[in-house]
Amino acid sequence: MNTFGRIFKISIFGESHGKSVGVTIDGCPPGIEITEDDFLADLARRRSGAKGTTPRKEKDLPEIISGVFNNKATGAPITIIFKNENVRSKDYSQLKNLPRPGHADFVAFKKYEGFNDYRGGGHFSGRLTLALVAAGVVAKKIINPINISSKLIEAGGSENIESAIDLALKKHESIGGIVDCTAKNIPLGLGEPFFDSVESIISHLVFSIPAIKGIEFGAGFSAAQMFGSEHNDEIMDESGKTKTNYAGGINGGITNGNNIYFKVAVKPTSSISLAQATVNLQTGKPEILETKGRHDACIALRVPVVLESVTAIALADLMLLR
Amino acid sequence: MNTFGRIFKISIFGESHGKSVGVTIDGCPPGIEITEDDFLADLARRRSGAKGTTPRKEKDLPEIISGVFNNKATGAPITIIFKNENVRSKDYSQLKNLPRPGHADFVAFKKYEGFNDYRGGGHFSGRLTLALVAAGVVAKKIINPINISSKLIEAGGSENIESAIDLALKKHESIGGIVDCTAKNIPLGLGEPFFDSVESIISHLVFSIPAIKGIEFGAGFSAAQMFGSEHNDEIMDESGKTKTNYAGGINGGITNGNNIYFKVAVKPTSSISLAQATVNLQTGKPEILETKGRHDACIALRVPVVLESVTAIALADLMLLR
Amino acid sequence: MNTFGRIFKISIFGESHGKSVGVTIDGCPPGIEITEDDFLADLARRRSGAKGTTPRKEKDLPEIISGVFNNKATGAPITIIFKNENVRSKDYSQLKNLPRPGHADFVAFKKYEGFNDYRGGGHFSGRLTLALVAAGVVAKKIINPINISSKLIEAGGSENIESAIDLALKKHESIGGIVDCTAKNIPLGLGEPFFDSVESIISHLVFSIPAIKGIEFGAGFSAAQMFGSEHNDEIMDESGKTKTNYAGGINGGITNGNNIYFKVAVKPTSSISLAQATVNLQTGKPEILETKGRHDACIALRVPVVLESVTAIALADLMLLR
Amino acid sequence: MNTFGRIFKISIFGESHGKSVGVTIDGCPPGIEITEDDFLADLARRRSGAKGTTPRKEKDLPEIISGVFNNKATGAPITIIFKNENVRSKDYSQLKNLPRPGHADFVAFKKYEGFNDYRGGGHFSGRLTLALVAAGVVAKKIINPINISSKLIEAGGSENIESAIDLALKKHESIGGIVDCTAKNIPLGLGEPFFDSVESIISHLVFSIPAIKGIEFGAGFSAAQMFGSEHNDEIMDESGKTKTNYAGGINGGITNGNNIYFKVAVKPTSSISLAQATVNLQTGKPEILETKGRHDACIALRVPVVLESVTAIALADLMLLR
Repeated sequence: MNTFGRIFKISIFGESHGKSVGVTIDGCPPGIEITEDDFLADLARRRSGAKGTTPRKEKDLPEIISGVFNNKATGAPITIIFKNENVRSKDYSQLKNLPRPGHADFVAFKKYEGFNDYRGGGHFSGRLTLALVAAGVVAKKIINPINISSKLIEAGGSENIESAIDLALKKHESIGGIVDCTAKNIPLGLGEPFFDSVESIISHLVFSIPAIKGIEFGAGFSAAQMFGSEHNDEIMDESGKTKTNYAGGINGGITNGNNIYFKVAVKPTSSISLAQATVNLQTGKPEILETKGRHDACIALRVPVVLESVTAIALADLMLLR
Repeated sequence: MNTFGRIFKISIFGESHGKSVGVTIDGCPPGIEITEDDFLADLARRRSGAKGTTPRKEKDLPEIISGVFNNKATGAPITIIFKNENVRSKDYSQLKNLPRPGHADFVAFKKYEGFNDYRGGGHFSGRLTLALVAAGVVAKKIINPINISSKLIEAGGSENIESAIDLALKKHESIGGIVDCTAKNIPLGLGEPFFDSVESIISHLVFSIPAIKGIEFGAGFSAAQMFGSEHNDEIMDESGKTKTNYAGGINGGITNGNNIYFKVAVKPTSSISLAQATVNLQTGKPEILETKGRHDACIALRVPVVLESVTAIALADLMLLR
Repeated sequence: MNTFGRIFKISIFGESHGKSVGVTIDGCPPGIEITEDDFLADLARRRSGAKGTTPRKEKDLPEIISGVFNNKATGAPITIIFKNENVRSKDYSQLKNLPRPGHADFVAFKKYEGFNDYRGGGHFSGRLTLALVAAGVVAKKIINPINISSKLIEAGGSENIESAIDLALKKHESIGGIVDCTAKNIPLGLGEPFFDSVESIISHLVFSIPAIKGIEFGAGFSAAQMFGSEHNDEIMDESGKTKTNYAGGINGGITNGNNIYFKVAVKPTSSISLAQATVNLQTGKPEILETKGRHDACIALRVPVVLESVTAIALADLMLLR
Repeated sequence: MNTFGRIFKISIFGESHGKSVGVTIDGCPPGIEITEDDFLADLARRRSGAKGTTPRKEKDLPEIISGVFNNKATGAPITIIFKNENVRSKDYSQLKNLPRPGHADFVAFKKYEGFNDYRGGGHFSGRLTLALVAAGVVAKKIINPINISSKLIEAGGSENIESAIDLALKKHESIGGIVDCTAKNIPLGLGEPFFDSVESIISHLVFSIPAIKGIEFGAGFSAAQMFGSEHNDEIMDESGKTKTNYAGGINGGITNGNNIYFKVAVKPTSSISLAQATVNLQTGKPEILETKGRHDACIALRVPVVLESVTAIALADLMLLR
């Protein structure tokens, strides 16, 4: 369940406040150049620091412990680990018994019968996306010249992202957002009927990212308001290039050679410093929770690079499958 | 790729105008009562007939050819086939060279190097959802007492579905719609981190249904406009019952014991009888297509039972995994 | 569990005395020529008829119900079914309660809580190998020019197979045998570390064939008696051709370009007409079983074509994976 | 390919002379007690040291970097790594171009186009069995009270193992051996038709262990010489207990409640210090190889604990599947 993919297969592990988080990448073709420096740019994009992101700072230095020899992929599994350093577990000690509303705390406690590592959300932490970003860096090399870019296009219901964040910070709140993603230079024919449509594979991975609650491809929900004659993208020539791209580059689950385009909905982070009602897991009694950890006012700010990464992972697998 | 699931595993096969479509269901627990009659109600719901659906009529009689003995599942794979009877392939002969805009015709031709069965969309046909509905009937028995219901809540951008369909028929157009789905009596703890979140598994299957272009869980895209304090569902007691259900019954990818709720966007059917510009696959030249087959003006009318089915399939697998 | 393979994936279904047995083959490249006649030769080799095989006669006519159009694979799943015709279920009615020693009857009853189809072994019947042979015919087309041949080299401990069978028939006994298999024109580099060694994949499939109890590659068990300097096959040139082939064409789990060679041990059929002690499943009391069904005195006679088939299936998947 | 299992799933990584080897274990039930000390006994059994094993000494200290909290499995993936410390890569520098006959050197070079880590066999090294033993320790806890024991019963064709090893050392040779394995307290009903027979799953894993070239269950190859009436194990009572155990505890691929019993053939290590003819990978010319690394004269001495481990891994997955 912590493994995804058929040919380009990734397995992730780790907890927010454990020793390390990491990823094993299987199926990377031999000869691809990989150095630890290659990861730094995307890791920096994921890292906090901007206004609206958590003050928890981690160096996030990747350590490649297998699968690379003389700076080239060997064809054997590539394992990359990230040590957790800036761990202030005491911030979370109260969470042992007081699950944060909207977070995985409650379900994790019940599902794992109280044996889960509750510190910072444990294995459910957004810190696991570090592993996705690392795998995404390798995937992007494989799918070259496919080019993926993602951006936050709306936060807190506002296109003025900065003012939305200011408001959230002032109110000690969190806000969500909408992030889009475009992948260019897509070969025609990726995706497999019946169950491995491109939308199926991408959405499967996208909903593994904490906080994502919706996805739409091309015109998406707006398509439900269009007539067929409007929504059908006119095929302009033998290459499959279409006049419009309401399909988001995918027909019948298969890429049609046009850009893949989709948007995702990011919910507001559940961790907020406002007091919230919850239930004490030991006593079963209602209690008021005031979360003291370091949080993101707008986690959506950090989503774009993660979204690019899972898209790259999905496309790497589909391309190697083909 | 035509197989889905880990424990409750389904494999589907068939083409719109081939001999049969069918499904093999592996992992059904022995002893569950199954007769051919059990399928009729859901198959009837999927079948065309209402205004706005295709006039192609099929009897859709299920034939169970393995895995059931004395009206009980044996534990061996259950294969169910449906003969294709009302096949008018000549309707589709022009499609051999003229791909319908918005349909899989073009990508299927390219991906399978011209060897695809082009008649009626072949393996990409909505007729394959017959197999999903059959598997869903078995899944529903397994997940009992979970109860799933789905309905069309909007068509062509209008809540007045009938008038929207009338307009579409009048204009020789097709329209899309929004379908929601609610699953009740959900046990807490279904879903597996990191990649097999409940949203991941459901969306994977949902995007296998032809014409679906978006999905949102709970508040979905609206969540992106909410504050954390609004969106976080207050946990009311030890059972995990929440005051609101903006999460759609899922936290951290795991069911929290409240109803699962999601909505999907159905695009307008690409097959319409209006003339459309396309490209001739043999000559590479632009050409005008006038589709003569029997089509659905509003395929979304037939989606609810299919959506229930894939939800049941997803939950059956997650429950047996647990 | 009834599915095998990663790219060339097969799913089998059916019971000895149900309506049909069959197979769905997913991942067959489009354009491969396939007609129902192509199956007849291998099906005939599998069929009974020779002295020492069961008198149950089935026509074993393959019916292709999907995935082939104009005699070519379309790229969609190919489903082939075989109707069961010569069914004399009453022969087996006593088996409902009296499990045959050495057969799956007892474990099937217990595992499936009495819901298993006990007639003729149900899903555990050797009749399921029909599905393997059908899939093997398709696999052999894919792996061309790899050429696989298998033969019975010993029966009942005797190289004089005919006299061993005569003796078995005279004594109302069954006998086992040794079957070997050679695959020629093997490309170097098939097989994947760590878990998908060629030996792992082939043995996985081979032990799915009823009655197989051992397998050895190259020198196999004799290797345990050799010195390294004897067993190491000398590499003669850059192509990897070796002077000897004690490795059976596989080093480190990977094909080395020489012939793959292995042998399997086939146990004597458990169904014999001699009286045998067993336990009545209803009463729990010891009872004497006299089996009246139609049996094979030497099932090993029918194994070679099945062994070729699973080898072809294994190699097809490994080649498409590469 | 470096991942095995359906519920109890392991992924292994690492190279002989890289930074680390390790394993990620997914699907371990929460609450199982796990400390680093628990691994020491089995790791010591695998380690070299006895006469006939390599003088390369590694401390083999397991470091658990995820999935365990307060000495209990959390339910999240457990990753265990072993640093490689006693690495003398220069011993292997000549192997870059001179593949050892009988080893994976040649196929690895070809398969990975020269990008493989050739030092000490890289990812094909027997050092990877460290990861199997670590996973086996966890698996053994899960399958409790199943008890598995394995022993070397023959080496170099001789039951007098010590004298066989003395001879091999004197001749600068390597020898193989036969190792058996018994698993007791087996629940009836493990294994899944059609492809996941217990023999299939065990043999799949067993052939992943370097140097294994054969496996036989119960009477194995001897079964091919027996009459059915001899080989059929008489069922003595309702529990399924049989008078003999020629089936090795498995009928129709399913455990019958008796002990699982099988034997494997271990070939002589390919690394020997005698001069051997090979081909230079750069020049394509024949050359004489004299291997100087540290080797095992009888690797079979170190196989029993690895065989127990993979058996435990197989049974853990089958038990959790059930």
